[in-house]
Amino acid sequence: MRTVFPTKELRDEAVEKYHATEGGKQTFGNLATYVADLAEETSDTPSPDRAARVRVHSFSVSIDGFGVGEGQRLETPFGHAGTRLLEWALPTRTFQEMGFHDEQEASNGVDEAFASRWNTGIGAEIMGRNKFAPKLGPWPNEEWRGWWGDNPPFHTPVIVLTHHPRPPLEMEGGTSFHFLDAGPAEALEKARELAKGRDIRIGGGASTIRQFLQADLIDEMHIVVVPIVLGRGERLWDGLEELEQRFRIESVTSPSGVIHMTFWRRG
Amino acid sequence: MRTVFPTKELRDEAVEKYHATEGGKQTFGNLATYVADLAEETSDTPSPDRAARVRVHSFSVSIDGFGVGEGQRLETPFGHAGTRLLEWALPTRTFQEMGFHDEQEASNGVDEAFASRWNTGIGAEIMGRNKFAPKLGPWPNEEWRGWWGDNPPFHTPVIVLTHHPRPPLEMEGGTSFHFLDAGPAEALEKARELAKGRDIRIGGGASTIRQFLQADLIDEMHIVVVPIVLGRGERLWDGLEELEQRFRIESVTSPSGVIHMTFWRRG
Repeated sequence: MRTVFPTKELRDEAVEKYHATEGGKQTFGNLATYVADLAEETSDTPSPDRAARVRVHSFSVSIDGFGVGEGQRLETPFGHAGTRLLEWALPTRTFQEMGFHDEQEASNGVDEAFASRWNTGIGAEIMGRNKFAPKLGPWPNEEWRGWWGDNPPFHTPVIVLTHHPRPPLEMEGGTSFHFLDAGPAEALEKARELAKGRDIRIGGGASTIRQFLQADLIDEMHIVVVPIVLGRGERLWDGLEELEQRFRIESVTSPSGVIHMTFWRRG
Repeated sequence: MRTVFPTKELRDEAVEKYHATEGGKQTFGNLATYVADLAEETSDTPSPDRAARVRVHSFSVSIDGFGVGEGQRLETPFGHAGTRLLEWALPTRTFQEMGFHDEQEASNGVDEAFASRWNTGIGAEIMGRNKFAPKLGPWPNEEWRGWWGDNPPFHTPVIVLTHHPRPPLEMEGGTSFHFLDAGPAEALEKARELAKGRDIRIGGGASTIRQFLQADLIDEMHIVVVPIVLGRGERLWDGLEELEQRFRIESVTSPSGVIHMTFWRRG
């Protein structure tokens, strides 16, 4: 008899954990759970066949190319843009499960298809100081622990780029913040260590992504174009003339009104 | 018996012109021709029920929002952008019929569906001086008659905005160029006279469209986002913060890679 288990140890583990020897419907249920767990584990396990990728996910810009508005402060983390660049994402299952929005039924269409990819296979994030905290400059104190509460949604190490390093922060749920005064290449080297072979996400904001693009360090990018004209703030596309030479680009529209653009490095 | 003809005169004309009284298949063929002619005539005839609209068609911008590149000259009318902003349009039936591109079979999909709308119901165009001629400033002589040869594709009066007026030009095929030193509102008033109740097209370039948008004089707009980063040139979206408050916006992608965005004034 052929077995679905490659080794006796794995079969024994499956029998132990999922009662794989039981008969009838219950077995299929347990088996489904096993396969689902296996699939999740696989997708989060680095593949020995490829190098870790550097990825951008769900980064929103206005049609005039601004990734954030003007006047970012504690009360207005996105400046005068408010939540307008994020509104496509809030109803998605992925964002609702992160606790962003509880009032309505989660959406599960094309917006969710793109949103759901953000954390799969990711071993570390790199973010700009401005994404972590509302004010640039020296830390007034070290009480600020990010916008995301005690258990941030990242669940991996996160490198925060800052000219004012401070001791790392261990949060609940596997997230840790590491403060680094470094350029893109050096930050990426550190992130690769922390990610243990998994992919690296460049988490934004606009200037951080732009710096990594200018240094040609990004492999895959998901940009969401929101049909609003912000007029002022921080531009994503400046200084990136002929970026399209390095990437294949596909676009798809969503019933929510936004356009999902995917960029991936030309082979 | 009910008749499809509202008056006896129209019925007699149809009988005369399309042999509408013949029997069998041929009648349907003739009737189809009649209906098609009627539809075309109707679409080009101003409707007494609505005011003439001010429209923009097939205006292309890069993802960083430039409508033309830097360095526009006689040899490079689109500056360093070359033909990259136009490449989606060249294979369409509409552009091929304008004589832009003869080498391949005309495309007839979504790009053509949008391209084909540009001239229907239009009675006049307004364009910037920079679209008409390669150099800004006083006319070195009056020999320049536009980029389009003796029979330009407009077939209507065209107002050319310039600080250096010159006598009008009558071209073949119904196109005439009228040189006017005026702001958007005054130019539009003049265009309405020339258009005799038909719609007005704002033909570009970027700064001309932007001025009309800033003066809130545009009713409908078709913008094509081309997935290239131009980096420099003339931006369309500057100074138009919250433009989306005035328009409904829809986007659709094309297999050619571009995104067609349509804007129409909120009711």
